[in-house]
Amino acid sequence: MRTNSLLPPPSSGAVVVLQAAAAAGVSVCFANPGTTEMPLVGALDQVPGIRAILGLFEGVCTGAADGYGRMRGQPASTLLHLGPGLANGLANLHNARRARTPILNIVGDHASWHLRYDAPLTSDIESLARPVSAWYRSVKTPEHLWQDTVDGIQAAMASPGGGATLVVPVDFQQQAAPDQARPEATPATAPAFDEARVGEVQAVVKDGRDVVLLLGDRALSERGHIAAGRIAAATGARLFSETFPARTERGGGLPDIDRLPYFPEAAIAALKDAVVILAGALPPVAYFGYEGLPSELAPADSLVTLAQPGEAADLALERLAERLQAPSLPTPPASPPYSVPDGPLTPQTVGRLLSNALPPHAIVSVEGGTCGYPFVTASARAAHHTILTNTGGAIGQGLPVALGAAVACPERRVFALQSDGSAQYTIQSLWTMARERLPVVMLITSNRRYGILQTELGRNGIEPGPHARRLTLLDDPPFDWPALAQGYGVPALAASTTEELRQALAHAIEHTQGPLLIEMRLA
Amino acid sequence: MRTNSLLPPPSSGAVVVLQAAAAAGVSVCFANPGTTEMPLVGALDQVPGIRAILGLFEGVCTGAADGYGRMRGQPASTLLHLGPGLANGLANLHNARRARTPILNIVGDHASWHLRYDAPLTSDIESLARPVSAWYRSVKTPEHLWQDTVDGIQAAMASPGGGATLVVPVDFQQQAAPDQARPEATPATAPAFDEARVGEVQAVVKDGRDVVLLLGDRALSERGHIAAGRIAAATGARLFSETFPARTERGGGLPDIDRLPYFPEAAIAALKDAVVILAGALPPVAYFGYEGLPSELAPADSLVTLAQPGEAADLALERLAERLQAPSLPTPPASPPYSVPDGPLTPQTVGRLLSNALPPHAIVSVEGGTCGYPFVTASARAAHHTILTNTGGAIGQGLPVALGAAVACPERRVFALQSDGSAQYTIQSLWTMARERLPVVMLITSNRRYGILQTELGRNGIEPGPHARRLTLLDDPPFDWPALAQGYGVPALAASTTEELRQALAHAIEHTQGPLLIEMRLA
Repeated sequence: MRTNSLLPPPSSGAVVVLQAAAAAGVSVCFANPGTTEMPLVGALDQVPGIRAILGLFEGVCTGAADGYGRMRGQPASTLLHLGPGLANGLANLHNARRARTPILNIVGDHASWHLRYDAPLTSDIESLARPVSAWYRSVKTPEHLWQDTVDGIQAAMASPGGGATLVVPVDFQQQAAPDQARPEATPATAPAFDEARVGEVQAVVKDGRDVVLLLGDRALSERGHIAAGRIAAATGARLFSETFPARTERGGGLPDIDRLPYFPEAAIAALKDAVVILAGALPPVAYFGYEGLPSELAPADSLVTLAQPGEAADLALERLAERLQAPSLPTPPASPPYSVPDGPLTPQTVGRLLSNALPPHAIVSVEGGTCGYPFVTASARAAHHTILTNTGGAIGQGLPVALGAAVACPERRVFALQSDGSAQYTIQSLWTMARERLPVVMLITSNRRYGILQTELGRNGIEPGPHARRLTLLDDPPFDWPALAQGYGVPALAASTTEELRQALAHAIEHTQGPLLIEMRLA
Repeated sequence: MRTNSLLPPPSSGAVVVLQAAAAAGVSVCFANPGTTEMPLVGALDQVPGIRAILGLFEGVCTGAADGYGRMRGQPASTLLHLGPGLANGLANLHNARRARTPILNIVGDHASWHLRYDAPLTSDIESLARPVSAWYRSVKTPEHLWQDTVDGIQAAMASPGGGATLVVPVDFQQQAAPDQARPEATPATAPAFDEARVGEVQAVVKDGRDVVLLLGDRALSERGHIAAGRIAAATGARLFSETFPARTERGGGLPDIDRLPYFPEAAIAALKDAVVILAGALPPVAYFGYEGLPSELAPADSLVTLAQPGEAADLALERLAERLQAPSLPTPPASPPYSVPDGPLTPQTVGRLLSNALPPHAIVSVEGGTCGYPFVTASARAAHHTILTNTGGAIGQGLPVALGAAVACPERRVFALQSDGSAQYTIQSLWTMARERLPVVMLITSNRRYGILQTELGRNGIEPGPHARRLTLLDDPPFDWPALAQGYGVPALAASTTEELRQALAHAIEHTQGPLLIEMRLA
């Protein structure tokens, strides 16, 4: 870091924090502020370059920052109100930590001299923040506000990345900040890979054993896909994507890489007796532990690491392909669209119709398994698109991530393929999409139940009685999705048949003036 | 504690936990379960006596448990899905901690043997839970599940009370629990007061100085009000309620006790030069710290404690009244209803119309200052009612608390006087009200802005520019409240004039088949 100037006083601490953030590349702030953030709110009008976007609920803000960071590789900021405001954003920060998304959370706090009185909103912010934060600092003096902000952003950008949480008491925001150094953020180091590991993997691949390449993180970029496809074609290695990638490219002639199955029985079968090469993926473990099944989906001694998450797994794959002298793959012929007969909507027809309809370079935020799995299966044939999934299992991520992706990439169309139950956790996303005129197409899978819980009751050997059954049903009353959309100023359509969904999708793709919701009423 | 039997095997751990909870008085479970809570969900059909109520979002569950506990003085349970599910419920648990409401949070976790693999939903639940929990335990062995559950409930009920968080790994829920002691919960000790303090206060009150009685907690019961009124009449002492009581009785001829003003200037002026007797209230501190104003609203040497929160402040007041030989007060004449002229709705006319309309023994959950303050000012003239306020400042409490109060008191009518901005944080409450056919009347103050933030910008000396202004406005697009209500199966009305609100309230009071929402469109 080098120091290039001194801050001219009088600038408030709030101005210094925002100037530092803007200088380090933060250009969006997803905000749900309160009284202790008012100087920061005021400073947004003094510091150019930061777009403030209001969320009605903090989980919308943190999820949007996750979607933004996944697409941009640069952090958005959130602006949250003390411990309780942060608390409402924690679930999506948990997901962002699993996705290793860079985020700068700015959390206001009581005036430093007021904290000791334990006023109603006082809480242990650190205890709340630590589990989801790659970096945490509560500012104790206004001397280093610029440095504090830059440190947070750098920690969010550094490997393994994730949310950085900076707590700024309101008095330090308010007061003229003391003269202080304004170091520039050190640019993040370009990801690299380890040539020796490439050599080890090359030896393994060549010895004729059954090999699986398990791809995650940067291995799921376009370059990673292409290199993995070359390796598979040249060696017979099988390819899997991790089950819930933060971001994966797909379609447009890229190799069709399946996700590792969700349930452990199938995942274990898929990896059985194979050498599992980890390319940007963590060692695969069961999502939940089930009695009688191992947590590790592949034995530890079957794993070989090519590149860890955060490393240049895509470049490592290219290097491996090169060392294997794997030929380039011919451009595959364009896939014909799926032929989808008229009839009631099913998860499979939904997946195929969406796959058919995707415009080039669409972004699809997927939350919920009912239509999510069939869509990803189908979408290898679609135009090139980017898929974002729920990385941490905290529900309510899909709509905010779509929102943030739309802010990050105004030139791309964004779709949210979203189950009805999970949509409810951050339903307030609709309003921000309407307010910001974001052309997000929300496809709500309306099956009026928590399908996964019905499955899991069965896996637990539970024949649900009336209580258990009622806790998995959402049909009394059913949600009226078009009315909910209208409530937030979002136009909506409903589709119960394949023909209706086809027409709704065609209409949605023409509709570029803001969000649109399509309720997909499954039989 | 005594041990009265051994549990007959084979009962699963989940059954044991629910049996223990039911035996200790838990009869409602506000649930948003996931995979790691399936055995507990199944056990709800095996253990009689616990009503399971589904929330679409965990903040609805925890806020409802708060409302229930405030009205019943007994804990409801919540059922939450690992760290992220708990995280979504933290904000209202923060409020419940400030309200000292007994709650038993049951949080499922990964199988004990699966935790070490750091699967996607793994998190540091303890770090998340501690700031809002009066008691925390993560079960490490199934030998003492009954005792663990009873310990949690007892901690929630003991002074100072609050949420108890019991984390139960799914394998301990699933397996047949080992034989174990089934101790009964020790009944909570009846609150008491300290006679010596009554004597000290008596001496202070009699020496002719200006005295303020600051009432909180049990001092705001009916008996506390009546005793405080006698003391005030006999001695000239002035009475204030704490600003945000967990529960206060009001109307029906009870003494009209003002709330201590919210902003510190007015609160300091109200208490200036007085001896401040704390009856169930904490020493008054400013809600937020403002430069140039003290955090303590009354100097420490002006405070005299009659009873602490959790103690029998009402009985202490009665004893004080007796020692002062304060006469009983005559029954006041019934107050005539307010005369409210036809015209557009204002906060004052809203407060008066609601006050006029309240049926006897109504419960009013108040969140949001715009109409909240005018209503409480007006409602001294109303029929007897109970007011529940936002104790901790975490937004999104009003609707869930009304929901929980309606479950707790099916024989009483429940009203939620709720600002539009704060309603959005837990808007999913509407669905559970509809599903459970709870006759809650929701009165949404629709002013399409965060009024408090506009005030606080002004107090910060900030003339809002376009960014700051936009972060305080909710008018683009405006919420369509009747549509949102319809989306969740709740009938709705809208009122823009005093006459329309009068009619809507009359209709609402006739409507007893479930919830009803009234959008009050302020000029």
